[in-house]
Amino acid sequence: MIDYDSFFSRAAGHMKASAIRKMGGVVAQGRDIVSFAPGFPAPDTFAWQDFQAITQELLSGRDGSVLQYGPTRGFRPLLDAIAWIMSRRGAETANDRLLVTTGSQQGLDLVARVLLDPHDVILVELPTYTGAISAFRNVQADMIGVRQGADGIDLGELDDTCERLRRAGRRARLLYLVPNFQNPTGLLISLEKRAALLEWAERRDVLLVEDDPYRDLYFEDSATEADVRPLRADDRSGRVIYLSSFSKTLAPGYRVAWIDAPPQVTAKMELAKQAADLCTGELDQRVVYEACARGILDRQAPILRAHYQQKRDVMVAALRRELGSDASWPDPRGGFFLWVQLPSTLDADAMIGRAVEHGVVYVAGEAFFVNGSGSNYLRLSFSAPSPSRIDEGVTRLAAAVREELAANRSESPVPATP
Amino acid sequence: MIDYDSFFSRAAGHMKASAIRKMGGVVAQGRDIVSFAPGFPAPDTFAWQDFQAITQELLSGRDGSVLQYGPTRGFRPLLDAIAWIMSRRGAETANDRLLVTTGSQQGLDLVARVLLDPHDVILVELPTYTGAISAFRNVQADMIGVRQGADGIDLGELDDTCERLRRAGRRARLLYLVPNFQNPTGLLISLEKRAALLEWAERRDVLLVEDDPYRDLYFEDSATEADVRPLRADDRSGRVIYLSSFSKTLAPGYRVAWIDAPPQVTAKMELAKQAADLCTGELDQRVVYEACARGILDRQAPILRAHYQQKRDVMVAALRRELGSDASWPDPRGGFFLWVQLPSTLDADAMIGRAVEHGVVYVAGEAFFVNGSGSNYLRLSFSAPSPSRIDEGVTRLAAAVREELAANRSESPVPATP
Repeated sequence: MIDYDSFFSRAAGHMKASAIRKMGGVVAQGRDIVSFAPGFPAPDTFAWQDFQAITQELLSGRDGSVLQYGPTRGFRPLLDAIAWIMSRRGAETANDRLLVTTGSQQGLDLVARVLLDPHDVILVELPTYTGAISAFRNVQADMIGVRQGADGIDLGELDDTCERLRRAGRRARLLYLVPNFQNPTGLLISLEKRAALLEWAERRDVLLVEDDPYRDLYFEDSATEADVRPLRADDRSGRVIYLSSFSKTLAPGYRVAWIDAPPQVTAKMELAKQAADLCTGELDQRVVYEACARGILDRQAPILRAHYQQKRDVMVAALRRELGSDASWPDPRGGFFLWVQLPSTLDADAMIGRAVEHGVVYVAGEAFFVNGSGSNYLRLSFSAPSPSRIDEGVTRLAAAVREELAANRSESPVPATP
Repeated sequence: MIDYDSFFSRAAGHMKASAIRKMGGVVAQGRDIVSFAPGFPAPDTFAWQDFQAITQELLSGRDGSVLQYGPTRGFRPLLDAIAWIMSRRGAETANDRLLVTTGSQQGLDLVARVLLDPHDVILVELPTYTGAISAFRNVQADMIGVRQGADGIDLGELDDTCERLRRAGRRARLLYLVPNFQNPTGLLISLEKRAALLEWAERRDVLLVEDDPYRDLYFEDSATEADVRPLRADDRSGRVIYLSSFSKTLAPGYRVAWIDAPPQVTAKMELAKQAADLCTGELDQRVVYEACARGILDRQAPILRAHYQQKRDVMVAALRRELGSDASWPDPRGGFFLWVQLPSTLDADAMIGRAVEHGVVYVAGEAFFVNGSGSNYLRLSFSAPSPSRIDEGVTRLAAAVREELAANRSESPVPATP
């Protein structure tokens, strides 16, 4: 028998399975389960007929390059379309700043590989996106978490953390943020705080990694286009590395996203991408480009906002009805996620078996915390299930929570008689 | 001004642009240039109509998962189809050994990340594929080259290298090989040598990384299915990590390839892939699966063999006619590449400007050597240009070579009178 462990790299020794992807596996077993686990967009919103028509034209064979290897930077007309999207978000850009990536997960991986050595410090929100945690862990970076308030990351704690690191002779090189409808909390960073973060990054000589997949999905009853203005739009000195994606607005089956960064950083990421996958799929990029050029993306955005807002409404109403006294959450003003806090005695990870028995799954909160806390939180995605399934799923979840709380009470040690 | 250099990782400091991708840029400028640079398959061989029909069905919207995120391992029916392909190559496998990758470049990247730490040694052929060099360089591995004979890697030098390393207290963990129609040399490793390599790997406790994108493209005038039998087929002890791809047989625009490895290694690579890009494009995988299930791949293989064999014939005939006295090369028995040796005074990299003036590009050989040698070699891809363009391109190349040789002679220092 070969001892493969003796062949693995140190990075491989640190790799862990994604909690979200594991929960995806539970659903794949085909039982009647309402899945609130993965942040999947709703396929019934996809522009199927448009994609059919576009693809039919592209695959005529008239242009052989449609199925060929493409440039690592990306399909040039798509880069131009992305520049136009950036400009509408308030951020003028140029082609030497842009790189198409194979989904935003690749963007995070490139950030990690180009900007982090083992034991370098990257600051992240508590909690933060598990895919980012994986990318940073795989380059063996040290992640240090900073708590969030109702309007996003706590600036006082952020600066204190930085100062503490400085005194210990360490430097925080990067801060990773999801300012719009954060994964997993759904929180939106206030405009004042965005300005303060840019000022802070300048003062502390830190680069900001702004991950922005959900910005088009603000809910019009409680947020506006102005509220989701990226930090990148007001970055005067080149502090921001901005990531966004077409996965949540067109479809994730097309693996097309982008990075906008200072040209020197983009150039390095292009080199890293050459070795990572040569280029993003050319056909995918052409389809996405046509969806931009033909106005499909613009047509979809308000439809998606209304769609997900309605699902948020259904989930919030069901939670209030079923779990109002045992749970609390910030009402999401956009995005895919609702972040539920349960009584502190409850362990969301330990409860998963019971939840599956009741026919519902979620992602236990602990996976989103780099400091090992968060065991009584869970992330619910309301994006993919239908409204009636959301209602049913919350009912099932509430039954599981009530059972778990009762079981915990009966298991608690009886206080000793003095 | 921000000093971005102070933010880059050590890996980023080592990254280099791919010589192949740079030459791609030259062609993109739109002049009349015959490009022998990139190893692009011929788009006129792609099964356009089949792809149209398959995609039209898949995009009907009946199955929402077609454009959704998919499992990191890959689309299950595609994994089954790959297992069937492996079995026809003589290698029985199982789903826990298989991982779909976003092109074989990602496979190389995952191998590097899971199996190599900075300064670990990986042995490679002299010359070897530049994409592999990039992937290994980006994890800061030390690559040590071993020369090739007419039937592949030199076993004596291979073992001497290993022994030399051992005496220096170092261990070679991996050997990277392209046994079938190697990129860039076009060489085929003999069956005897394959058996000897497996025996050697066992004796030296080394894992073999077998990269096999070209095996279906053997030329029927000089090679058979038996000649391309993978090392993996005779690997009794789990020494081989096998990579292959649909890019050369269906189309590279679908970024779909695979790894077959011992289950423990595949499991680690799956974790690395989760953080690298979550999953390979689901639509791409479905299209490739349908192309397997409907017999399109099987129908294409003999067509492609004949197509590329004819182009090889045209290139060899033109080279004999134009450069017979100044160049030599091994006649390829399959694949995309012809590897030309020029007189030792000639520097292929320095000649590129002159070649472009004449309207032809290639990849200078030095990029394929990890030891800095090979300046008088060049790689010509005969796969993409039409037969008449191949003939024209070789004529142009020969003119450039003759000019360069003449210029070198006139520049040579006149021997000093004693």
